[in-house]
Amino acid sequence: MKLYGYWRSLAAFRVRIALNLKGIPFEVESMDLVKGDQFSDAYRKINPQMVVPTLVDGDSVLTQSMAILEYLDECHPEPPLLPADAAERARVRAICMISVADIHPLLVPRIRKYITQEMGHSEEELMAWIHNWMTTGLAAMEEKLAGDSATGTYCHGDSVTLADLCLVPQVGAAGMFGVDTGTYLTAKRIFETCLQLPAFFDARPQAQPDFPEEMKS
Amino acid sequence: MKLYGYWRSLAAFRVRIALNLKGIPFEVESMDLVKGDQFSDAYRKINPQMVVPTLVDGDSVLTQSMAILEYLDECHPEPPLLPADAAERARVRAICMISVADIHPLLVPRIRKYITQEMGHSEEELMAWIHNWMTTGLAAMEEKLAGDSATGTYCHGDSVTLADLCLVPQVGAAGMFGVDTGTYLTAKRIFETCLQLPAFFDARPQAQPDFPEEMKS
Repeated sequence: MKLYGYWRSLAAFRVRIALNLKGIPFEVESMDLVKGDQFSDAYRKINPQMVVPTLVDGDSVLTQSMAILEYLDECHPEPPLLPADAAERARVRAICMISVADIHPLLVPRIRKYITQEMGHSEEELMAWIHNWMTTGLAAMEEKLAGDSATGTYCHGDSVTLADLCLVPQVGAAGMFGVDTGTYLTAKRIFETCLQLPAFFDARPQAQPDFPEEMKS
Repeated sequence: MKLYGYWRSLAAFRVRIALNLKGIPFEVESMDLVKGDQFSDAYRKINPQMVVPTLVDGDSVLTQSMAILEYLDECHPEPPLLPADAAERARVRAICMISVADIHPLLVPRIRKYITQEMGHSEEELMAWIHNWMTTGLAAMEEKLAGDSATGTYCHGDSVTLADLCLVPQVGAAGMFGVDTGTYLTAKRIFETCLQLPAFFDARPQAQPDFPEEMKS
């Protein structure tokens, strides 16, 4: 398979973890979102939204990380990343969606650009926006996880599910943006537990070939 | 089943359509998002994110509209709202996510409040924000639908899928906000076709008991 991604993209991070967990070999085509690689005519034909990730599996061109995760779990069922029970599956997907729908879309490049360039806000005001939605979202995630006996070693029980694939990039991004994640005890614990697994560790932004040299120090 | 919703919520609209299509009887508890019903202690216990919808099915308390839609399709498989083939399912879910993750989260009450109250923007500037993301998102949806032979009477082939449940509220909201939807030919055609089905028509915001009297004219 071929993954169009970027080291910094949380959505591409989710997909890399899934591919690693499923043991699927894949090559990465790095799309530099800062330079604007995603706006090329060639990429637009693959992904009209001009965002990452896109996963190409034979003739299938797959977009939207959540749709890709479900696809991978359907086509490569081992290890399963969703529980068998419908209500449990709904809980896992709801945790995913806190990150996928309620936090991440507020922080992506096009939003940041609009806030600074169209609305005329400073970098400081942009950071306040980012911090606000990260902390609101992580608090919601923590409240969902902490008080629920369905939470185990991972977000749902003692096996990795799609919820962990969405939580880890989100908590990681919060750390990168200087958000104090220490107060989100359960989310932080699950984040650290997941990163002990090679599938998560190797998918980190810092472990990608396109991670910038100057950020390595 | 019991649905905590609100006439204006696009996410609750999606769930109402699914319940209607599946022929599942449900009662609605209206949460006035403008008055702040969602912030009550009682509702917070049900939905810590303090958003709608929440669907209660026996002992199961389900949140996040996309997770709820998948749950309903799993528990009540007739009529199916996802194709059988994995790549086709991924296409349907990707169309859903354009609305669920890329448009709708930018327009919800908490965002509008932040933009006007925290960032100090006028109603006019807020409307520019709303229009910008609605038109960007609808253009992406249109591009995904228009050039693809997988699009049929509905978003995917000639049967209703979850993609239609996400498209219809989004196109409807655009109309309510004065966005000219006429340029999104395919999306508009599918929107109009869907609204000929009672399951969609009866789920419209305007058809809900909590739709404000003063807006009926």
